[in-house]
Amino acid sequence: MVAAALADGTADRDCVFEVFARRLPESRRFGVVAGTGRFLEELARFRFGEPELAFLAERAIVSDQTLEWLANYRFSGDIDGYPEGELYFPGSPILTIRGTFGEAVLLETLALSVFNHDSAIASAAARMVNAASDRALIEMGSRRTAEQSAVASARAAYLAGFSATSNLEAGRRYGIPTTGTAAHAFTLLHDKEADAFAAQIKTLGVGTTLLVDTYDISAGVKIAIEVAGPDLGAVRIDSGDLGVLAMQTRRQLDELGATKTKIVLSGDLDEFAIAALGAAPVDAYGAGTSVVTGSGAPTAGMVYKVVEVDGKPVAKRSEGKPSRGGAKTALRRHKPSGTAIEEVVIADAVDLEPGPGERLLQVPLVRGGEPVGDQPDLTAARRMLRERMVTLPWDGLKLSRGEPAIPTIFLEGSKK
Amino acid sequence: MVAAALADGTADRDCVFEVFARRLPESRRFGVVAGTGRFLEELARFRFGEPELAFLAERAIVSDQTLEWLANYRFSGDIDGYPEGELYFPGSPILTIRGTFGEAVLLETLALSVFNHDSAIASAAARMVNAASDRALIEMGSRRTAEQSAVASARAAYLAGFSATSNLEAGRRYGIPTTGTAAHAFTLLHDKEADAFAAQIKTLGVGTTLLVDTYDISAGVKIAIEVAGPDLGAVRIDSGDLGVLAMQTRRQLDELGATKTKIVLSGDLDEFAIAALGAAPVDAYGAGTSVVTGSGAPTAGMVYKVVEVDGKPVAKRSEGKPSRGGAKTALRRHKPSGTAIEEVVIADAVDLEPGPGERLLQVPLVRGGEPVGDQPDLTAARRMLRERMVTLPWDGLKLSRGEPAIPTIFLEGSKK
Repeated sequence: MVAAALADGTADRDCVFEVFARRLPESRRFGVVAGTGRFLEELARFRFGEPELAFLAERAIVSDQTLEWLANYRFSGDIDGYPEGELYFPGSPILTIRGTFGEAVLLETLALSVFNHDSAIASAAARMVNAASDRALIEMGSRRTAEQSAVASARAAYLAGFSATSNLEAGRRYGIPTTGTAAHAFTLLHDKEADAFAAQIKTLGVGTTLLVDTYDISAGVKIAIEVAGPDLGAVRIDSGDLGVLAMQTRRQLDELGATKTKIVLSGDLDEFAIAALGAAPVDAYGAGTSVVTGSGAPTAGMVYKVVEVDGKPVAKRSEGKPSRGGAKTALRRHKPSGTAIEEVVIADAVDLEPGPGERLLQVPLVRGGEPVGDQPDLTAARRMLRERMVTLPWDGLKLSRGEPAIPTIFLEGSKK
Repeated sequence: MVAAALADGTADRDCVFEVFARRLPESRRFGVVAGTGRFLEELARFRFGEPELAFLAERAIVSDQTLEWLANYRFSGDIDGYPEGELYFPGSPILTIRGTFGEAVLLETLALSVFNHDSAIASAAARMVNAASDRALIEMGSRRTAEQSAVASARAAYLAGFSATSNLEAGRRYGIPTTGTAAHAFTLLHDKEADAFAAQIKTLGVGTTLLVDTYDISAGVKIAIEVAGPDLGAVRIDSGDLGVLAMQTRRQLDELGATKTKIVLSGDLDEFAIAALGAAPVDAYGAGTSVVTGSGAPTAGMVYKVVEVDGKPVAKRSEGKPSRGGAKTALRRHKPSGTAIEEVVIADAVDLEPGPGERLLQVPLVRGGEPVGDQPDLTAARRMLRERMVTLPWDGLKLSRGEPAIPTIFLEGSKK
């Protein structure tokens, strides 16, 4: 595309591209924007180096003109978007990219890869956080997704309200709290369960979490308290009927005087399983596979569409997947109580001033190719999401399939 | 775990770990091993550098003893496994890692991340290849998965029999054939559809594929042939009722004399949609989201379990997820016709000689920490899978949910 557009001169036309989701996956009720921080980091180093150019030249994939253009490529346009941690709904213009066709079209794969992945994980994770109520959630899914996705998943889950991750690289790269408990292999390595517990406590202190389900759980709990004493931090149960086992274990721990020892549950937990454990005496959940795979929706289904060329709205018109032309302005309307009412997406709005209860949703992210200073960090994004969740109508927090929590209204600028 | 095991001396115990899947996801009938090549590449550079060690030290996550051990870490043990492109079933020991506890336990996340991702993608992709029969499949899902997963997905899909990928980095890194067609944005960029087609043909020749569904499809096809002539390579349709549109388009192309112009279909195609298009006049399919997300099973669900410590079998015994101790030998039994009968997994077998129709499944991958020479490359893996697919009983090729194509029989060495 770039080669052909450079050849006929259209690569220089000013374009506006938008990223949005046509629908929420799995008939969910809200989506969570995540990936902005990662996207801006990647954008800063999005260049075509010698190895890439040599490959394209060798296979004659693009023209010499294009090779030269790619060698000098850097995005020099403007980007606005929903901040990380904001909610989104079908049609929300999550990202708006302004630049020449050539420079903007080249960002499609980068932007969609980051936002489709990270938003899918954060959206699923936010449902788990909601289902867990005020109990802690630990992300431990690194082994169920590709290496680098694991790090991005830990970041997205933390943004969504998880307390910690077992992915140390995510701790290093993004400052996320890290934690971990021993695996069954550690117990099996030792001649006796008591030896494994003693070794772990000697190194990590009695505040550690002992995995008690390698052999017999109630024997495991008994041994754990014998070895650690009643100040043991926590026990983890990773298999079996978790609700029943949690109740038995709580009773046993209390009888042993370990009334403050916490119970951590893990093992194929998703938002539904977490919700179902609401009445069980649990202190924290470990979630793995379901978080890093988006709990049934591993991609957010966002698309990257051109909506303006040289200032004029453009849109695909054939059947199946129609789209709306014109750069959009988005605002969310709220009741005086703060509860969200609707997402308003307005094409070709000029200098829109939000009225009472209205909030403009996009913020400047990039100007002239440079990131706008003072971007909110991961902690701020996490806080924003917590605040936004409170604005959802009650129905929006249901785990069941349904309509988006608020409708999206599409308007033309003149109609506002 | 490593810190505690170093402190009590158990880190040096000889261990055997195995990677296997307890079941096939989505009640599928076979799985495809993929990721071996990537795993061996990653293993060679799996080291703890200054930034990682500094982070661990700063947060006091591990002891000084452990920091020093990690600084010197390199895997020095042996690894055997199913070759890439081999089929697997529940319980198949896909990878066997022999080394000290410390050095082998540290590979868990790396091995599982690679194999769980790549095998999930290849397993889904193989079903699509089968559904597509002898028609070509193009992988175009990069935008629906995280950046690096996109490259790994393209590799896994190619291994499974896809013809090409739109991911240029996968072409560069793994030598996979690359292809691509223009997006709707390219048509919308131009004042007229004819201008966009002319520009594309001028740069890429009449052998290119024109996307004809931006406005009206039959008008788009007419314009495409007007601009390109009857030697146009292909048209792509990305929306609407693909089966009906393919038939209409074939008729229209033939009437226009473009009898050799091919039809490429894309747009949310998975193995079921591809199979449903079997009777339509299609030449190639583009598959995106469904391939890179494993078509409903984004992770293969493989686990990494210790099965031997100091030569003695060990196994988790509590309820829920029991496992089998002892290092396993795996062989597959076949009828004289070559059709597979069963997967035989034997614990503690010594120097097993396969009988008639039996084939040992593991090959040496790593010896003393170094990759064994002459590993099959991606092309060989692709060929192996094609050969293995022919050995599946007919039922094993069904797309519907069901039992594994062949049962897995677990034996003790003495019983063989």
